[in-house]
Amino acid sequence: MFTKETYVSRRNRLKKQVGSGLIVLLGNEQSSMNYKDNWYHFRQDSTFLYFFGIDRAGLVAVIDVEANAEVIFGEELTPDDIVWMGPQKSIREQASEIGVGLTKPLATLDSYFQHALAKKREIHFLPPYRPENLLKLSSWLQTAPASIKSMASVPLIKAVVAQRSIKTPEEVAEIEKGINTTVEMQIAAATLARAGMTEAELAGQLQSIAIKGGGNLAFPTILTVNGQILHNHYSPTVLQEGQLVLVDCGAASATHYSGDLTRTFPVSSSFSAKQKEMYAVMMTAYEQAVAMLKPGVKYKDVHLQACTQLAEGLKHLGLMKGDAQEAVAQGAHALFFPCGLGHMLGLDTHDMEDLGEEYVGYAEDQTKSTQFGLKSLRLARALEPGFVLTVEPGLYFNPDLIELWSAEKVHADFINYEQVAGYKDFGGIRIEEDFLITPEGSRVLGNPLPRNMEEFRQFAR
Amino acid sequence: MFTKETYVSRRNRLKKQVGSGLIVLLGNEQSSMNYKDNWYHFRQDSTFLYFFGIDRAGLVAVIDVEANAEVIFGEELTPDDIVWMGPQKSIREQASEIGVGLTKPLATLDSYFQHALAKKREIHFLPPYRPENLLKLSSWLQTAPASIKSMASVPLIKAVVAQRSIKTPEEVAEIEKGINTTVEMQIAAATLARAGMTEAELAGQLQSIAIKGGGNLAFPTILTVNGQILHNHYSPTVLQEGQLVLVDCGAASATHYSGDLTRTFPVSSSFSAKQKEMYAVMMTAYEQAVAMLKPGVKYKDVHLQACTQLAEGLKHLGLMKGDAQEAVAQGAHALFFPCGLGHMLGLDTHDMEDLGEEYVGYAEDQTKSTQFGLKSLRLARALEPGFVLTVEPGLYFNPDLIELWSAEKVHADFINYEQVAGYKDFGGIRIEEDFLITPEGSRVLGNPLPRNMEEFRQFAR
Ligand SMILES: [Mn+2]
Ligand SMILES: [Mn+2]
Repeated sequence: MFTKETYVSRRNRLKKQVGSGLIVLLGNEQSSMNYKDNWYHFRQDSTFLYFFGIDRAGLVAVIDVEANAEVIFGEELTPDDIVWMGPQKSIREQASEIGVGLTKPLATLDSYFQHALAKKREIHFLPPYRPENLLKLSSWLQTAPASIKSMASVPLIKAVVAQRSIKTPEEVAEIEKGINTTVEMQIAAATLARAGMTEAELAGQLQSIAIKGGGNLAFPTILTVNGQILHNHYSPTVLQEGQLVLVDCGAASATHYSGDLTRTFPVSSSFSAKQKEMYAVMMTAYEQAVAMLKPGVKYKDVHLQACTQLAEGLKHLGLMKGDAQEAVAQGAHALFFPCGLGHMLGLDTHDMEDLGEEYVGYAEDQTKSTQFGLKSLRLARALEPGFVLTVEPGLYFNPDLIELWSAEKVHADFINYEQVAGYKDFGGIRIEEDFLITPEGSRVLGNPLPRNMEEFRQFAR
Repeated sequence: MFTKETYVSRRNRLKKQVGSGLIVLLGNEQSSMNYKDNWYHFRQDSTFLYFFGIDRAGLVAVIDVEANAEVIFGEELTPDDIVWMGPQKSIREQASEIGVGLTKPLATLDSYFQHALAKKREIHFLPPYRPENLLKLSSWLQTAPASIKSMASVPLIKAVVAQRSIKTPEEVAEIEKGINTTVEMQIAAATLARAGMTEAELAGQLQSIAIKGGGNLAFPTILTVNGQILHNHYSPTVLQEGQLVLVDCGAASATHYSGDLTRTFPVSSSFSAKQKEMYAVMMTAYEQAVAMLKPGVKYKDVHLQACTQLAEGLKHLGLMKGDAQEAVAQGAHALFFPCGLGHMLGLDTHDMEDLGEEYVGYAEDQTKSTQFGLKSLRLARALEPGFVLTVEPGLYFNPDLIELWSAEKVHADFINYEQVAGYKDFGGIRIEEDFLITPEGSRVLGNPLPRNMEEFRQFAR
């Protein structure tokens, strides 16, 4: 929770920028697992948190820009509820704490919107990512669910992105809390990993640290000896000597700001020569990318520079050939790095991903590439002071992809497929750190965690 | 996963019992936290698991009873997906493993149902508890979302309840896996609890054990020094000497069968005399309830007997007065025990709760009471061999409820409010074990975990 003044001024700026109409911000509801009352842990909507800060299920906020009126709709607890749930703050109390004087029952929303539709008011809302909120909008706006998403308000999206993209010092401090818990998780991973343990066992230990930190996981932990498969999480797979473990994890602070760090380390105490070489290639790309971070630099260029450096390094190892810059221009490096270099970080790990990458990561004059690899770049626009973002280069040896490309001789001018064949079982490595863009350049966030493989290795025994 | 024959015979019995029409069983989808692709851990629908066993998001199964045809609808991975997700079994392969020969793309479901509606086929479905499945049914059946739930098929509900209520030995073995991991969680709670630690820290440790066990939490852990508030989970509250910690937790097995155990223990190594007395009252009620468990006995009578014994014990302590049986008949005991004695346990912790308590827990000739306390009894019907259920008496001193009743002199003939005032800060205690009803009586499930407070205390230091 920030101060009342913070929330008030965020909403004032929002009203000013949107200019007119009704701004409807839906909070989240509880999500059911296998029956209605068996819930996943509650996660409030991030934009709702940003403007209203109330971490409670089932609320809807409406701002009438012309009338300069703000209302929070929700159901107050009954005396019966208090018996089961204990004494709780009322919604009225919580609303007043963040500067909203008016609260109303949810049941009045139907007529509220009927009235607004009758008066042909503009109704601004964000693209819903939860089906219950889609259903509500569909009912209020008397529009089929399938049509709702396309009716989301671009002016509202842009106004929200404009504010949430620039993190205040208070927000950076919250992000650092998330990162510091994440650092503890990474240290635990390296300390506790042993041959014979399952991925799931180690992942469970990391989650317990995130919960102890006062929040929870910001996203499902990736903890795998198959780091080459980017969307792998964890499994009952048993860790074995000689394997590399890739750990990409993040704790959320109690206020839901996210950390996001990756390390790759061997199950055994020692790295193979091959692993060391590959790690060094990745680290050079990482260092070059980090050195470029400053206001005005396009993140797309940082990404391309890192890709070029990865290609240079792979060329040095004999896996690629030809001109590295040309290889990257044609997308040949994407066999080993088929994704983007990083993303915005904040209340969401992929910050504001629900609002649309074209608004969050790309300037109006930038269009997203359709090239394999580059099309997965989430952040391309010019950096500004106050941006918080990740830098996360990696090298992935996906045997299925290698087989596919090799059979069709894809980019054979740039790839030595005979050499690559010897790396089919290498797995995947990645490193990831979180940065604040400062007026002068950048600052790495959170407590220090060794990046150098030999230093990080000291944790592993 | 059970054998192909198991799934085939479950479906054959279902078809026979439902008799005619189309049976539509919806699997679950991924649930989003704060943006579409940031998911909670996946939980498949339990009835889908029971009849089809495929633990994968986004499937729909349709059984045409007259045609004796079974189809699983889903989207196969594309070669592109395999790059990101690694090699996976196809839906076709998974369907074939459980005896379903036909799979079709999800996109064909719209026309499938148009055809079925045109032919005026009966369409049986279960009450949806997830909004995305409600939306799908609404679209397929061309019916407003608000009307869907009332159209759920009672014959299908009854047929599902008939099968899932009686656990096979293979299912009991899976439940015991869940319980055994839960036993480990309980031992860890007693071993690790220390003054100065937060509830959340301890709860996180328990979750890590559930994850290590190959499943996850079956339900959000209740771990609280405020056990008198029944819906409390855990918080940043710091454990203090002299407090009682109530831990109600359950791990799910890898096949999603649930354990559910409760213990209450002091943060300190020693119990106060008051805590010992109260624990003994609860244990007598527990023992009496357990002694009654056998086929033919109505669980409602077990509940009422336990309530009467609680009232007797409280009378002995001076907190209640008058005839204990009459006190229970009038609901006076509910000040201290405002809930039910237990519930069915299986794939769900509150087994089949999504199908409706009136079908799962009550026989056709039993109606649910509206009396405070008794109205929260989930299971009332006569027990049958193969039922698995919990027995969980407790004693709760909710200061808000005590104040409310005391002010209005509710059941003042049976409650000594002056005495009760001295217990306002006692908190809450509960014990919970899981039982299989056998032809002769009952069997407590899972590895032993001390119930006696002095024995359980040996873990705590
Ligand atoms: Mn990241
Ligand atoms: Mn229970």
